[in-house]
Amino acid sequence: MNNFGRIFRLSIFGESHGKGVGITIDGCPAGIPLTEEDLMQDLGRRKSGARGTTPRIEKDLPAILSGTFEGKTTGAPIIILFRNKNTQSKDYSNLLDSPRPGHADFVAQHKFGKNNDYTGGGHFSGRITLGIVAAGVVAKKILGDVSIDAKLTEIGGRTDFDAAIEEALLEHDSIGGIVECKANNLPIGYGEPFFDSVESMISHLIFAIPATKGIEFGSGFEAAKMKGSEHNDNFIDETGKTETNHAGGINGGITNGNELVFRVAIKPTSSIGKTQNTMNFAKGKVEELLIEGRHDACIALRIPVIIEAAAAIALADLKLIDQARR
Amino acid sequence: MNNFGRIFRLSIFGESHGKGVGITIDGCPAGIPLTEEDLMQDLGRRKSGARGTTPRIEKDLPAILSGTFEGKTTGAPIIILFRNKNTQSKDYSNLLDSPRPGHADFVAQHKFGKNNDYTGGGHFSGRITLGIVAAGVVAKKILGDVSIDAKLTEIGGRTDFDAAIEEALLEHDSIGGIVECKANNLPIGYGEPFFDSVESMISHLIFAIPATKGIEFGSGFEAAKMKGSEHNDNFIDETGKTETNHAGGINGGITNGNELVFRVAIKPTSSIGKTQNTMNFAKGKVEELLIEGRHDACIALRIPVIIEAAAAIALADLKLIDQARR
Amino acid sequence: MNNFGRIFRLSIFGESHGKGVGITIDGCPAGIPLTEEDLMQDLGRRKSGARGTTPRIEKDLPAILSGTFEGKTTGAPIIILFRNKNTQSKDYSNLLDSPRPGHADFVAQHKFGKNNDYTGGGHFSGRITLGIVAAGVVAKKILGDVSIDAKLTEIGGRTDFDAAIEEALLEHDSIGGIVECKANNLPIGYGEPFFDSVESMISHLIFAIPATKGIEFGSGFEAAKMKGSEHNDNFIDETGKTETNHAGGINGGITNGNELVFRVAIKPTSSIGKTQNTMNFAKGKVEELLIEGRHDACIALRIPVIIEAAAAIALADLKLIDQARR
Amino acid sequence: MNNFGRIFRLSIFGESHGKGVGITIDGCPAGIPLTEEDLMQDLGRRKSGARGTTPRIEKDLPAILSGTFEGKTTGAPIIILFRNKNTQSKDYSNLLDSPRPGHADFVAQHKFGKNNDYTGGGHFSGRITLGIVAAGVVAKKILGDVSIDAKLTEIGGRTDFDAAIEEALLEHDSIGGIVECKANNLPIGYGEPFFDSVESMISHLIFAIPATKGIEFGSGFEAAKMKGSEHNDNFIDETGKTETNHAGGINGGITNGNELVFRVAIKPTSSIGKTQNTMNFAKGKVEELLIEGRHDACIALRIPVIIEAAAAIALADLKLIDQARR
Repeated sequence: MNNFGRIFRLSIFGESHGKGVGITIDGCPAGIPLTEEDLMQDLGRRKSGARGTTPRIEKDLPAILSGTFEGKTTGAPIIILFRNKNTQSKDYSNLLDSPRPGHADFVAQHKFGKNNDYTGGGHFSGRITLGIVAAGVVAKKILGDVSIDAKLTEIGGRTDFDAAIEEALLEHDSIGGIVECKANNLPIGYGEPFFDSVESMISHLIFAIPATKGIEFGSGFEAAKMKGSEHNDNFIDETGKTETNHAGGINGGITNGNELVFRVAIKPTSSIGKTQNTMNFAKGKVEELLIEGRHDACIALRIPVIIEAAAAIALADLKLIDQARR
Repeated sequence: MNNFGRIFRLSIFGESHGKGVGITIDGCPAGIPLTEEDLMQDLGRRKSGARGTTPRIEKDLPAILSGTFEGKTTGAPIIILFRNKNTQSKDYSNLLDSPRPGHADFVAQHKFGKNNDYTGGGHFSGRITLGIVAAGVVAKKILGDVSIDAKLTEIGGRTDFDAAIEEALLEHDSIGGIVECKANNLPIGYGEPFFDSVESMISHLIFAIPATKGIEFGSGFEAAKMKGSEHNDNFIDETGKTETNHAGGINGGITNGNELVFRVAIKPTSSIGKTQNTMNFAKGKVEELLIEGRHDACIALRIPVIIEAAAAIALADLKLIDQARR
Repeated sequence: MNNFGRIFRLSIFGESHGKGVGITIDGCPAGIPLTEEDLMQDLGRRKSGARGTTPRIEKDLPAILSGTFEGKTTGAPIIILFRNKNTQSKDYSNLLDSPRPGHADFVAQHKFGKNNDYTGGGHFSGRITLGIVAAGVVAKKILGDVSIDAKLTEIGGRTDFDAAIEEALLEHDSIGGIVECKANNLPIGYGEPFFDSVESMISHLIFAIPATKGIEFGSGFEAAKMKGSEHNDNFIDETGKTETNHAGGINGGITNGNELVFRVAIKPTSSIGKTQNTMNFAKGKVEELLIEGRHDACIALRIPVIIEAAAAIALADLKLIDQARR
Repeated sequence: MNNFGRIFRLSIFGESHGKGVGITIDGCPAGIPLTEEDLMQDLGRRKSGARGTTPRIEKDLPAILSGTFEGKTTGAPIIILFRNKNTQSKDYSNLLDSPRPGHADFVAQHKFGKNNDYTGGGHFSGRITLGIVAAGVVAKKILGDVSIDAKLTEIGGRTDFDAAIEEALLEHDSIGGIVECKANNLPIGYGEPFFDSVESMISHLIFAIPATKGIEFGSGFEAAKMKGSEHNDNFIDETGKTETNHAGGINGGITNGNELVFRVAIKPTSSIGKTQNTMNFAKGKVEELLIEGRHDACIALRIPVIIEAAAAIALADLKLIDQARR
């Protein structure tokens, strides 16, 4: 479903080749300064243009259509719309018969039938994450002093990013990567177990982002190899600071005041410039497929700001929920 | 919060040392055969008693108090209660001053104050997962022919489980592990992007289970090292079966008819028989702490059935949601 | 569905002739004194025994099974269970063929099939409102100084209640009534338009109570006959107090600090001691039906405390939501 | 909060004097024909222009920005935007000190502070119901053969509408009215007790509509005066048709296949052309207030189509929920 959250609530909409994409943000406290200008920095970080991303530059201009008055939030829903430009382009109808490997073409047609908007990925397009980034900016404002910082730490299994990208470009291929996200200055007490643990809320949002394949908090998959005596984080001061941070800043689903840390695995972009095999379901036989156009060789380059936004959104909602019962 | 789901909805309650734990399951279709007897097999798999689990045997007898009539579900809410036995035991009040490393003692007290039930972990106890296992049985019935199977594939980083367990027991320590879960015979089309992708729903539930540190679907963290040409799964027949299954049975957040696969990292049990350091917050200094009693050296041994249940619950809800719009 | 609320959330369950009925209350702040004893006064007001109610006395003993510790709420879900007694009694299976006029027998069988628990109304029984009354007590505690008071103002169209009841008893018939509910000392600002206006939240709960047929706030249906110049409530002091109170304490879906007033129409009990006509659906013809047993001649006598509870529940949730965004 | 529904879900936004108002509709099945043209008939019924409504004509042109493809719904969220025109007009800032009687000015300022958009009612404006009407059109399509028909049955307590309107216009005053809504051809079985009875869902939406003061189903407030033997509706044929319809087509919160009937009380428009008294909160004294501009003498004239929409929305969601569990 296309909504998320209990107090700070999102409702997302749009298609890559339709009139636009956007998001409605409800439950935002009144009085927070918010203009389109505030959104530009994070939106800029999501933009293409850098080496390894698609040279197709999209102008992602947000328009805040409601929920602010004289530059501040009013407490009413905030809708942010990104109108699409120049989308009438090419014919995608061949995707109906020959779905692209790694994409949602095949399942979308099964689930929604012939009415699925298959052009440019439709509602499944990564373009829809523009709204997430915008909502993330609002969420960060709600969180106040909390700082959230995500960055790419590994690309194609390597840490020398440039070489990895050049290799992929040369081969008309794509590569995956790992994004690490850290949040500091979080108060103790955000998180609503049993079901709405911090990890549950963040992972729910992270796996809504196309191309994510895994998430781990703190020690993550390494924890499976450790002993309890190594893994337990000993308290070292009266604020609850711990010697190690295998917990990744969370105990029992609740922030413990230490740094929140998680890592996300991003798969290589499904659209590649190499010829692939796919089933032509109309003809009932496997055919070669060459996806034309310009793609992101490494979509992971554009994802850190989206992951920051997801973390901020989850934490902002948990902050407001926590506040409700104080 | 303690509820989850849109149509197939859970409401969980209880404490380890209170009167009992349990779950209310709402939104279940009418006419499904269901008795306490049906729950025993999965509950048995969660039980302690095996080498490496606590020798403290709990009798986990479920009582279905509502929602069935003449052995079948009625469509009304099903409440399943597990009464606790012999819980008056020892004094836990020292945890207020000296929270156990790795546990929720510290954060719970910050969030809920002196009123937090600290005895035996209270509402944070792993005992609360009994309800999840029971709900999992109902969910599996809703899913019909779908088979879900989770098992421990790695323990303390090794695959020779017995040796790993004996070593931990000898050292009065604990170890983590990895659980892999597979679901077969799933129809194409379950999953409700943007926010309620299959991965989002499953991971939300998985991270509600105490001790989980990471989750990955299909290729998971390996995907970050791969190229698109390797990662993309080529269709090989007219049912949508693919040559490889890096997608783990999901594209665009929707089941694609191939095997659903995910893996979960479980941390070593926080309660260990070794002396640890912890802050005595009343005295303001670090002290040694020895947690008495009998613990699970490897809680991961008892978790596979809980993970199966989580997967079944997420998929059952997605099945009913999908059905709503057909 | 059997859950309600955003922060202060209820999950209701049970059947009149099953093992019991009850409610789970989630989202309650920690630290509120709560014992079974606290529930007895309001439960007593719902009890039968008075002239005009069924002489069948039910012992409605609540058991709080979770969510409190040393007599105070912990912030974890509170489950309150009322076990049923002496319910094996009579055979209700004739209701499958011959549904009782005014009851849910007919629709329940259509919706849930043969699996519907038809004994004593099953999940449709008025007995399920015990949980609402219990949750109402908790809600009133959350509301602090707010006082809520509902009473029967009219019975069978009359204000001399005794005569109306005696007449109904003499005729083996039943009668309806009107309950008026007032809440005082409410702060300005509860209510979350657009959808969760105070009236929306209260009426949602009121129409869940069996036998309710109408609700009006402030001037209510009279407003339809009035002119704006008569209806508008003029402010008379700096606290926002108004000269008249046609608004019933609510403007734009939000409490305005004046007395909250609403009235609820209760239909006459459907079970009467007179012979009625009903369709025997098995035989395909109309037959006479005489419902045996002892019934409430005027169920409206027992409903005021349930209506108070509904108002308190809606307002408590709105209070916590409002607090989340302050 | 500004969202509603479980499967068929609405998210509403906008302000009367901002950039626009609108609605996002999620959970709509794929394949339903839908264009802007389809919305025009119902939007036309909400329009002003008739005698007794404001002579200020608004062009309410909807733009469907997402969720349709080649004229049919895709299963993705549908957003419908109504851009505002010519709204820069006058200065409303006096409302901050001198709130209008009967309006939300006073409570909005208390709840949201100085950041509330007070221009033209802001998010509290009746203009926001445009989205409800649009969503109602979609809901009616989901309901298929069901016909829903609302009309004004009483105005200012009279049935000779023209005279009532002329009198109000002459006096520069406003008048209320009663709208009756009937739905036919509903299947048996829609409605989800305990909490989501048909009446609960409809009344929740009805009381979100500005100016509604009461609602009654079937016999409604008359039921309070009746005896059970009069009120019970006897079944007369094998489809469940009843002799009378005091139930208003609903038993136990579930549609029973008979005509659904409810009535809604509408208060007189709060904005009138007569001088009123109001508190100037800045000066701390009562002053005379004359609201300039052109108003609806009888807003009830424009409300029937909004009430139809509310009924359709509630029923469409209940239909989809019912379908989920079949």
